Amino acid sequence: MTTITRIQTQDTRFPLSAGDGADAIHSNPQYSYAVTLLHTDTGNTGFGLAFTLGGGNDLVCRAIETLAEPLAGREIEELMAEFGEVQRRIANHPQLRWLGPHKGVVHLALASIVNACFDLWAKERGVPLWRLLLDLTPQELIQTLDFSYLEDVLTTEQARALLEIHAPTRDERASVIRDGYPGYDTSVGWFHYEDDVIREKTLQAVAQGFTALKLKVGSKDLERDVRRARLIRSAAGDNVRVMLDVNQQWTLPQALRAAAALRDMSPFWIEEPTHPDDVLAHQTLAREIAPVSIALGEHVPNRILFKNFMQAKAVEYVQVDAMRVAGISEFIVVSLMARMFGLKVVPHVGDMGQIHQHLVLFNHIALGLDKVFLEYIPHLKDRFVHPAAVMNGIYQTPQQAGSSSDLLALP
Amino acid sequence: MTTITRIQTQDTRFPLSAGDGADAIHSNPQYSYAVTLLHTDTGNTGFGLAFTLGGGNDLVCRAIETLAEPLAGREIEELMAEFGEVQRRIANHPQLRWLGPHKGVVHLALASIVNACFDLWAKERGVPLWRLLLDLTPQELIQTLDFSYLEDVLTTEQARALLEIHAPTRDERASVIRDGYPGYDTSVGWFHYEDDVIREKTLQAVAQGFTALKLKVGSKDLERDVRRARLIRSAAGDNVRVMLDVNQQWTLPQALRAAAALRDMSPFWIEEPTHPDDVLAHQTLAREIAPVSIALGEHVPNRILFKNFMQAKAVEYVQVDAMRVAGISEFIVVSLMARMFGLKVVPHVGDMGQIHQHLVLFNHIALGLDKVFLEYIPHLKDRFVHPAAVMNGIYQTPQQAGSSSDLLALP
Repeated sequence: MTTITRIQTQDTRFPLSAGDGADAIHSNPQYSYAVTLLHTDTGNTGFGLAFTLGGGNDLVCRAIETLAEPLAGREIEELMAEFGEVQRRIANHPQLRWLGPHKGVVHLALASIVNACFDLWAKERGVPLWRLLLDLTPQELIQTLDFSYLEDVLTTEQARALLEIHAPTRDERASVIRDGYPGYDTSVGWFHYEDDVIREKTLQAVAQGFTALKLKVGSKDLERDVRRARLIRSAAGDNVRVMLDVNQQWTLPQALRAAAALRDMSPFWIEEPTHPDDVLAHQTLAREIAPVSIALGEHVPNRILFKNFMQAKAVEYVQVDAMRVAGISEFIVVSLMARMFGLKVVPHVGDMGQIHQHLVLFNHIALGLDKVFLEYIPHLKDRFVHPAAVMNGIYQTPQQAGSSSDLLALP
Repeated sequence: MTTITRIQTQDTRFPLSAGDGADAIHSNPQYSYAVTLLHTDTGNTGFGLAFTLGGGNDLVCRAIETLAEPLAGREIEELMAEFGEVQRRIANHPQLRWLGPHKGVVHLALASIVNACFDLWAKERGVPLWRLLLDLTPQELIQTLDFSYLEDVLTTEQARALLEIHAPTRDERASVIRDGYPGYDTSVGWFHYEDDVIREKTLQAVAQGFTALKLKVGSKDLERDVRRARLIRSAAGDNVRVMLDVNQQWTLPQALRAAAALRDMSPFWIEEPTHPDDVLAHQTLAREIAPVSIALGEHVPNRILFKNFMQAKAVEYVQVDAMRVAGISEFIVVSLMARMFGLKVVPHVGDMGQIHQHLVLFNHIALGLDKVFLEYIPHLKDRFVHPAAVMNGIYQTPQQAGSSSDLLALP
């Protein structure tokens, strides 16, 4: 019996070195977490993170304070046995729901709360999050999830069947636990890096073993984008996958022109080409630029919009982020849908990969989702108690109990 | 020359009588405004409102404080001459954008800010908002708007042409200024009202001259919805339009069943049948329930999602609310799109109709949008300095300078 005795929030912001983290639209980010702390009578503390770029992180913390109230006094196993319903009720808070619904500050707050609950649950069971999730029965897992508004594409019965179908072949995929999960490096091509910095960081990353890299594009000047894309292709060679990240800077007509101009450097995907709410623009673009794929998700707030993107065949690489949707449970629901639609899940890592390193193991082993690679961003690695260990471009499977979310106390 | 000298916010909440304002999901609303006050060196004050249900209204106020900073020291005419660009920059604040983008708390904050700017502008020119908007040249109006991400369906050139095409026939539609704009009454059928209350309020509203009424449905129990819908039809008679408001309570499969069961009471529209982000579910439903129409918009956060709903033919009555999208300017952009797509604009009135009574006059006269009717909610009529005057079910055209947003000081 472990009871949540006190709920606390922390507004935690980390300065970055100049240029780090910047893209075409987010020019001066301060990587930040709106943290939920669930204190208990056993001494364990659940750590939940939601990611922001600094400004407004305090608003998310304040929303957490109100939304998390129903968790006070709850016993963790009892809570998680009906967590899907608890989460649904919190998401539909009769007054705060108006501020979303299911998006923006209130949904980021819910992400932090949900992640804290799962973290605490894994710590109480003394296992890493990936192990906790793999050991749940299909019914136990489904009880933690909110499927509402997905009934036309994914019922709880279909979700259960999908889990059961993949159970007998888990062993074939479990080698990933021993071998680790491949990473890719986002930190070689930030938007304001000079050409020679990009070349140098590309060569370094390839030498470290990374086989996939990302470049930020989306300049006002398409020629700049094309030049930098060719530069990174030339430095990385033809066997490295290079992803281009537009950070929503193109209109649909611009995207159609730019994708054509960038085709000859063979991008592995084009990421966030236009506004993240524009399902139908992505649908048109996906049709026009095939076989180049579209990746998106870091700004898609919930399972309902993801459902629309999938139904419209507007996305191939689903970059759902458990710091953006309602935490680990909505991440899993989106992953289940992706599996139904035959898509790939390559999370965006607002958590710097800390939590998602667990989730991609679960996705691959339990859902049979392809092992692609997981984004790696090193800027905060000295801030976590158990930072993700990436060696030769491979995430090493975490062994500590919990979701690897614990932050070091600030000096 | 009128300069904004000081920016202030007010967290203003109004208690309601028991049951008022309640629907299937918002069980205990407290109608509230996150107010932006733009103080000036001439003594006029711009009043901007964003609507919430109470909880979190403070979060919107805090977001206003940060997002409104660029307005300090600006001269109002200079500001409004490039307002579209100013608004775009505020919406893309390099850190706070992450909390949306263009939705949730930060976008509600932007709504309040934008509305304050237009209110101040009209006051400085000494005219009611509808007159200000009608007197702008097409180019002046377009300069106040942000068309980004709409280029595939509405360019600035198309918007200008649309305004110019309707200019010669304005006089034919200008009689609405003298005659007033028809209202409809939302307050007869709140969710928790007993059957006899609904019957009585229906008879009263019809006696007062209203020719359109709304009933809240979306019970867990479809039979309750059907009974209440037939009751209001029977009390109102066949010549009154009765709209059914589901407040997002149905899944797509439920919506298909319920719409069939409710068909025989001839609803004028079905409002918010399912989740407001689910463009494709509404597309399917619209096809299946025709000729019954779908109305939605009170939870659609921005022009991009509205664009998708329109492209998908998933909405007929566009209930855009200038308290939900980025204020008066994004309201006008959505109205321009609706005109392009041949749809009707019937705003949701988080402002209780105060501001929208101006905007529907503009929409009808300048854009040639149909004069349908405007929602009327009387619960806050004693809170405004110049409450909307609805007589015999008709909004009387406001004559005071500004947007009718000034709130009385709280006792």
